[in-house]
Amino acid sequence: MLPHLIYGGDYNPEQWSPDVWREDAQLMQEAGVNLISLGVFAWAKIEPAPGQYDFTWLDQVMDLLYTHGVRVNLATPTTSPPPWLVRLHPEILPVTAEGVTLWHGSRRHYCPHSSAYREHAAGLVKQLAQHVRDHSALAMWHVDNEYTCHFGECFCDASVAAFRRWLEQRYGSLDALNEAWGTAFWSQHYSDWEEIMAPRRTPASINPTQHLDWQRFCSDSWLVCFEDQKTILRELTPDTPITTNFMGFHKALDYWTWAAREDIVSNDSYPDPSDPEWLIGAGMVCDLMRSLGKGQPWILMEQATAHVNWRQRNTTKRPGEMRLGSYQALARGANGVMFFQWRASQAGSEKFHSAMLPHAGTDSRVWREIKQLGTELGRLDALLASHVQSDVAILFDWENWWALEQEGKPSNDLRLLPQIVAFYAELFHRNITVDFAHPEADLTRYRLVIAPHLYLVSDRAAKNIERYVAQGGTLLMTFFSGIVDGNDHIRLGGYPAPFRDLLGLWIEEFAPYANAQTNGVETVDGQRFTCDVWSDVIHLTGAEMLAHYQADYFANSPAVTRYRFGEGVSYYLGTALAQDGLAWLLDQVCEKAKIHHAHHMPRGVEVTRRSDSAHTWLFVLNHSDEEVRIDLPAKGVDLLSDAAVQTSLHLEPKGVAIVQLAAT
Amino acid sequence: MLPHLIYGGDYNPEQWSPDVWREDAQLMQEAGVNLISLGVFAWAKIEPAPGQYDFTWLDQVMDLLYTHGVRVNLATPTTSPPPWLVRLHPEILPVTAEGVTLWHGSRRHYCPHSSAYREHAAGLVKQLAQHVRDHSALAMWHVDNEYTCHFGECFCDASVAAFRRWLEQRYGSLDALNEAWGTAFWSQHYSDWEEIMAPRRTPASINPTQHLDWQRFCSDSWLVCFEDQKTILRELTPDTPITTNFMGFHKALDYWTWAAREDIVSNDSYPDPSDPEWLIGAGMVCDLMRSLGKGQPWILMEQATAHVNWRQRNTTKRPGEMRLGSYQALARGANGVMFFQWRASQAGSEKFHSAMLPHAGTDSRVWREIKQLGTELGRLDALLASHVQSDVAILFDWENWWALEQEGKPSNDLRLLPQIVAFYAELFHRNITVDFAHPEADLTRYRLVIAPHLYLVSDRAAKNIERYVAQGGTLLMTFFSGIVDGNDHIRLGGYPAPFRDLLGLWIEEFAPYANAQTNGVETVDGQRFTCDVWSDVIHLTGAEMLAHYQADYFANSPAVTRYRFGEGVSYYLGTALAQDGLAWLLDQVCEKAKIHHAHHMPRGVEVTRRSDSAHTWLFVLNHSDEEVRIDLPAKGVDLLSDAAVQTSLHLEPKGVAIVQLAAT
Amino acid sequence: MLPHLIYGGDYNPEQWSPDVWREDAQLMQEAGVNLISLGVFAWAKIEPAPGQYDFTWLDQVMDLLYTHGVRVNLATPTTSPPPWLVRLHPEILPVTAEGVTLWHGSRRHYCPHSSAYREHAAGLVKQLAQHVRDHSALAMWHVDNEYTCHFGECFCDASVAAFRRWLEQRYGSLDALNEAWGTAFWSQHYSDWEEIMAPRRTPASINPTQHLDWQRFCSDSWLVCFEDQKTILRELTPDTPITTNFMGFHKALDYWTWAAREDIVSNDSYPDPSDPEWLIGAGMVCDLMRSLGKGQPWILMEQATAHVNWRQRNTTKRPGEMRLGSYQALARGANGVMFFQWRASQAGSEKFHSAMLPHAGTDSRVWREIKQLGTELGRLDALLASHVQSDVAILFDWENWWALEQEGKPSNDLRLLPQIVAFYAELFHRNITVDFAHPEADLTRYRLVIAPHLYLVSDRAAKNIERYVAQGGTLLMTFFSGIVDGNDHIRLGGYPAPFRDLLGLWIEEFAPYANAQTNGVETVDGQRFTCDVWSDVIHLTGAEMLAHYQADYFANSPAVTRYRFGEGVSYYLGTALAQDGLAWLLDQVCEKAKIHHAHHMPRGVEVTRRSDSAHTWLFVLNHSDEEVRIDLPAKGVDLLSDAAVQTSLHLEPKGVAIVQLAAT
Repeated sequence: MLPHLIYGGDYNPEQWSPDVWREDAQLMQEAGVNLISLGVFAWAKIEPAPGQYDFTWLDQVMDLLYTHGVRVNLATPTTSPPPWLVRLHPEILPVTAEGVTLWHGSRRHYCPHSSAYREHAAGLVKQLAQHVRDHSALAMWHVDNEYTCHFGECFCDASVAAFRRWLEQRYGSLDALNEAWGTAFWSQHYSDWEEIMAPRRTPASINPTQHLDWQRFCSDSWLVCFEDQKTILRELTPDTPITTNFMGFHKALDYWTWAAREDIVSNDSYPDPSDPEWLIGAGMVCDLMRSLGKGQPWILMEQATAHVNWRQRNTTKRPGEMRLGSYQALARGANGVMFFQWRASQAGSEKFHSAMLPHAGTDSRVWREIKQLGTELGRLDALLASHVQSDVAILFDWENWWALEQEGKPSNDLRLLPQIVAFYAELFHRNITVDFAHPEADLTRYRLVIAPHLYLVSDRAAKNIERYVAQGGTLLMTFFSGIVDGNDHIRLGGYPAPFRDLLGLWIEEFAPYANAQTNGVETVDGQRFTCDVWSDVIHLTGAEMLAHYQADYFANSPAVTRYRFGEGVSYYLGTALAQDGLAWLLDQVCEKAKIHHAHHMPRGVEVTRRSDSAHTWLFVLNHSDEEVRIDLPAKGVDLLSDAAVQTSLHLEPKGVAIVQLAAT
Repeated sequence: MLPHLIYGGDYNPEQWSPDVWREDAQLMQEAGVNLISLGVFAWAKIEPAPGQYDFTWLDQVMDLLYTHGVRVNLATPTTSPPPWLVRLHPEILPVTAEGVTLWHGSRRHYCPHSSAYREHAAGLVKQLAQHVRDHSALAMWHVDNEYTCHFGECFCDASVAAFRRWLEQRYGSLDALNEAWGTAFWSQHYSDWEEIMAPRRTPASINPTQHLDWQRFCSDSWLVCFEDQKTILRELTPDTPITTNFMGFHKALDYWTWAAREDIVSNDSYPDPSDPEWLIGAGMVCDLMRSLGKGQPWILMEQATAHVNWRQRNTTKRPGEMRLGSYQALARGANGVMFFQWRASQAGSEKFHSAMLPHAGTDSRVWREIKQLGTELGRLDALLASHVQSDVAILFDWENWWALEQEGKPSNDLRLLPQIVAFYAELFHRNITVDFAHPEADLTRYRLVIAPHLYLVSDRAAKNIERYVAQGGTLLMTFFSGIVDGNDHIRLGGYPAPFRDLLGLWIEEFAPYANAQTNGVETVDGQRFTCDVWSDVIHLTGAEMLAHYQADYFANSPAVTRYRFGEGVSYYLGTALAQDGLAWLLDQVCEKAKIHHAHHMPRGVEVTRRSDSAHTWLFVLNHSDEEVRIDLPAKGVDLLSDAAVQTSLHLEPKGVAIVQLAAT
Repeated sequence: MLPHLIYGGDYNPEQWSPDVWREDAQLMQEAGVNLISLGVFAWAKIEPAPGQYDFTWLDQVMDLLYTHGVRVNLATPTTSPPPWLVRLHPEILPVTAEGVTLWHGSRRHYCPHSSAYREHAAGLVKQLAQHVRDHSALAMWHVDNEYTCHFGECFCDASVAAFRRWLEQRYGSLDALNEAWGTAFWSQHYSDWEEIMAPRRTPASINPTQHLDWQRFCSDSWLVCFEDQKTILRELTPDTPITTNFMGFHKALDYWTWAAREDIVSNDSYPDPSDPEWLIGAGMVCDLMRSLGKGQPWILMEQATAHVNWRQRNTTKRPGEMRLGSYQALARGANGVMFFQWRASQAGSEKFHSAMLPHAGTDSRVWREIKQLGTELGRLDALLASHVQSDVAILFDWENWWALEQEGKPSNDLRLLPQIVAFYAELFHRNITVDFAHPEADLTRYRLVIAPHLYLVSDRAAKNIERYVAQGGTLLMTFFSGIVDGNDHIRLGGYPAPFRDLLGLWIEEFAPYANAQTNGVETVDGQRFTCDVWSDVIHLTGAEMLAHYQADYFANSPAVTRYRFGEGVSYYLGTALAQDGLAWLLDQVCEKAKIHHAHHMPRGVEVTRRSDSAHTWLFVLNHSDEEVRIDLPAKGVDLLSDAAVQTSLHLEPKGVAIVQLAAT
């Protein structure tokens, strides 16, 4: 990787003539760009006919970039197979659950189980790596692009065959599969592997474990595609780091598994700036990326300078907002800030997507903001080795996400991300930095662990969580947790069976609410909050009641509880509290867990820290349109202005400061 | 059948181990269960490979149940073919109108026209019946399960071929078919049977008679599947009654035809308890089932103890509501109350469906309610031979339903069930019990017949209705009745051609309303009501105007009329009246027809009667959350409390009384 | 054509028996009918088996009509192929982008690229024309019916092959195609014509130029079908005019191209009478038809007498409204008024569609209105040679419409027709008659040209518009104009590149708005209007600011501008103004362009003129339900009442006058 904070974007020179390349290189240099993602959609350009390779243009571009101080994050251009491959092997095309073929003419039109696709892609990657392995510009590999963007599940016959092989690997025997899938239900017993089908369209709801295994399989299948290429690249360029660009909280792929196979985590982030809280969601994605990479630096691989073009209405980032979002990524652990794309396209599906260099050219506010940011970043290499620390973790597991959001639940209003966002936003407003953690991961470093809707929980995860509390941790668990095992089978013995001891309670039944139906919750000290969606009907076996329901047949029974377990404390929330109720609850929990607001700030001021062995840097981001004045924990120097800062700091609207705190 | 009121539910022992079977049998006995539906989804368990049958487990379970006083309603497990059959004969899979195949992995994945399916099902049923024919536990046959739940129309090539044969049977000649379908329109003339197609997807709207015949054909096709099995079962077990479980007002199947082929009517009823009026809809379904069985006792074959799991939000029956709904079925003619299912599943699509024995086990309010109900039902065998009488019938015909709700009408806002519910609810609130009757059925026993939107009417039905009024009956007909014949051809000669004489009026044209558009109706004595959806423009030829329109180009013309015809009276309603208008109209009609409120009760108290030659039992159900005190027509004894009751009765919230009235 | 104003409708005698034909002919004569569209759906009747033709019935009907003074607009009955053709050639059936076959059973079930269809259709047309060529009743040819009603794009393999051939014709070389389609984007380079695919369903958004060419191709393909028939008909009946019925602002077909191939333009118009402004939309369609025919008379080929049957709710035209709509067509250049259909059908999908002769027969208000209108039209032949003149043109181009409304734009809220309607309605209320013009057409005759959302503009069109202003014209252009060339490539050099000089400004960036987001615009004299959807961020290079934005980061920058260019003036509107803002803007523009309200009328009174060399007729239509009194520019005679009219005219609700003005 580069010995600098990374700055740059996607570049598609194949859309432009060589004289534009030269202008581009000069403007990149002017803007402080030091890394460019190249070749993402260049398969047809590199291999215009089967087995015929043309690297001339690529050499020219890489040479040109290198001489302008720009290194290359080279993409394996396998995301968009050329039309000739479709004609040669129409069976590479994906097929939907209804049997509809998805054709070429856009992108990502390949089935991950197609051997023809995989062989051609491998051939291409090998040729490419062999050709560029010694080029000085080569800095990183960008494998494929946004795996499972647009579609992630192919139901063609080859996919069905691959699913069967995957299941054989997983279960070893049909007996084990039949047991795991509960095929006694609805007479689904399999007596031969070849009887098994992908979850194509069915008359009624599909077997939920079949569906869950299918989601696991699909995530794994794409990972196999990634690994195909990684193996080739590692062999030919052993020292070049390999990544593939993630897409935030993207449901189709279990990024925990994926991140472990990458050299560095990178991510594409396209929050909708018309959402007044878009920087909260964007921050949450940053924290996920840092967590996926086990705290190591990650790269913001793509973002928009101003607007995208694929929403119904593509509002633009107002002046200063692109800069805010870029520093937010840095503040939350990124060591690089990149964009899609360098130069706005003249044709094609994304010609109205914003770019570092807009259609209007250099006489534009977007270009001026890009140049300013590049200049600033060039002064921040001191941050390179620093990291972010968190006292709080939110448990997050793709398998749980998949299982929870299948149909057929007591209430299909339960959705994982909104519940996570509700907690995350409260912590964000308190400037408490959050990690995301897999339920089986080591939790001992956290003062507080939040487990929202942890519906599916493995035995190992259940024990891990119990151990965490027993050893002194604080747990906050929300309703519909601990319900099923990894096969999506009910954990019998009273809900939530694996956590009854830990929580000091059991749940007799669920009472989901009708649409728009609400209830009230009253705390032991008389505060009242609205709740909706769901109520657990709870019986205490040791836990203390913190709040009770106000109405319905379970009125006066517990809604929120606390229980001392081992050296720690477990909290349980049996309903969906309105945001003010969540705030009350988090205040209780944080106070007991001795997690104090890192920084009391005016609403709209985001504060986070990066530290290395020597220094601590305070990132202060003013999201608001007002000037703010805030107190600092110590004096310091603002890296952006190079100005000494006393313990009070003034920030303009949308302003940013990175204060290197004086040792205290 | 049993010499007792039936109590029990579906049981799926194949999901559990034998030690659980033993616990189940003991708990069934404890709860007063006397009948269990067995084997609904057991095909794969009974026939694990083509032609290999295993009845060992079935024998064990039936023996065990029998020794615990539980008889068996044995299902032919043909509703969910095992995967091996799909692999052997993929052509059994259903195909949608768009050509999409529906795969296995859920249930009901078979085409009713598949000879492979029908042959395998017949073989299975034959083996099963031969095996169990002499088992003492065998009490009833439960053929297949919920025919056309999820999907009812297969468009595969075999289905098309079967449709052609059905049409040949129906029409005899292509000339007759061309005439009936009106194929002169849009150049659709058929010159060969093989040219005819199922109503697969078309560029524009399909021929309406083709569509109607398709709906008739589909209902008949599933009935053929039922008859396949019935023939085998009747031959092998001539004394065992045969049923298949209906699903209330289910559009796909003409239950009039079906019920005539059953030995006893049974029904699955899953009202949504989040609807505050769910017991009205549930009562309407009970009345339909009693009517389908010509007044004979029927069985509530499935209901939920608490909640289902296939709605977006599955609210639970509050304490007392399951009992209320069960007694409502009894009150309206059922002789049995059963549930899906006995024990809540641990895996599969319905693991969150409630059961008699919930996941929480016996320390739960649901189990306590189940035990209480079982104990009570055990004391009510006196009711076995009693029946329900009604003075009012609502005409209901599946063919009319199908034809009315096809596209291309003056207003597609016309929907049959809401119109029926509007009238039914008014009668329900007046505690006037209602039968449903086919338009060609004998109506002479009724004081009032209501004909809502009787759009399609056969010559025979038209004459039947006219004769009913001529002989002294009272008819209340609503707009868009008598418009087409059985081929969906306009009955020319002025709307509604077959009823012009009977009603003393004719209709020049229809004036459908725009969305949210309303008009007003004013009665001759000055009351005003809102109307919407539609106005007939009516000319009187003898009828008397009861109310007129207030606005639009037909202002002051008749909206509601009355006409003395022969010995009887006909009312006509030419628009969609708001509920208070319907109440006014029914008050008029009932008073003239001498139908008095059976029982003046506080709102929310439902009262019905069952009688046999010796006794009358008054069922009093308090739907409300308030205590009520009501007057009785005579003294009596409450069968549930065994307490003598004076002419005034006190009922707790959700309370039930069954008062055997003293002879007066 | 006839030497009279045309009056009549579609007639489908094949649905009726010969005795009904005789009644029909007599009633047609009674109603003043002089032209009937015959045979639209008669393929199966004329050719009951392949190659077997039966014209007996047609001869009888044509003879009968002729003897009753009724001429025939004979349809080539190719719109609905008989079932035998589908059975013989199932490949004629259309296929959707998802691969779903659309079957027979409704109508229009053929692919325009099917050689089997085209050969059979040609054979039929040839036989038909040979048979009737000398029949005195034959007055006009009605080719097929409503091309692309229901569906316009077939994706079958034959269609794909035809698309490739069309592209070869258009581009000559693959290099040209790759350049035009911008296939460097997303690696879509084509190296063989056979690699090219129709825009079938894809994982992500399709190449926009591929999509645009597909839309061009589809329009052309249907035109080839039309031309197939026209060639045959012209050869056999060289003197009989040929038309095909259009459908107003119908997106699938480029009617500019089509109209140029017809002898006379005809149109089917089915406005929704539940829309209180339906006569504005209907008038706009009339103006389009007149413009398509270069000002020559056109025919209103189909309209409803009262109501259609294919909407969700089919409200009926109130008394007088059918007459109003008919005279509106005449007032805007039609020389004929016809209906679908003569006699209401008894069966089929459209049996509830209104007709000249309703189900109720002749004792009905609809029949009375039809007779009155027929009588009146018989007195208006003086109008035959007159025409309509307009001072204002709105630019309208199908290619722009297609390109603009593809996905992927800055805001997909931009829709062409609503923007056009907004301007049209303002002009309509001012009684200013409008032409529609192709952007490449001669504009010199207009005082004002409006260019709404002229997103795609050819070089030739850009030059044409510039020349128009330079030579003294007034242009009003709205945002997102001049953005791309004919290949949908961005015109680089600053938006809107081809119009920067003409408008005296350039646009740095677009700021689309979120849903429901608004801003304000303030004029230089302090008036304020709301705006939404979009704002251009504008820099002036000579233009004068007429109004500026009130808020957002571009507050105070120009929203509306004016620029003197050459001899003319250009106005630019950079946002979506609320209707009062548009009214203000049009008042400004019209005053400067010296376009005065033709007639100051009370709201709801529509006034237009037809003139010939000798006379001017003023059409006055009172849409309102109030009596109105209006001032005339001169004395005259009302052709409908034959009454002399002074300079003031009194009109009843829904009243019409056609005043032949005295020479002044």
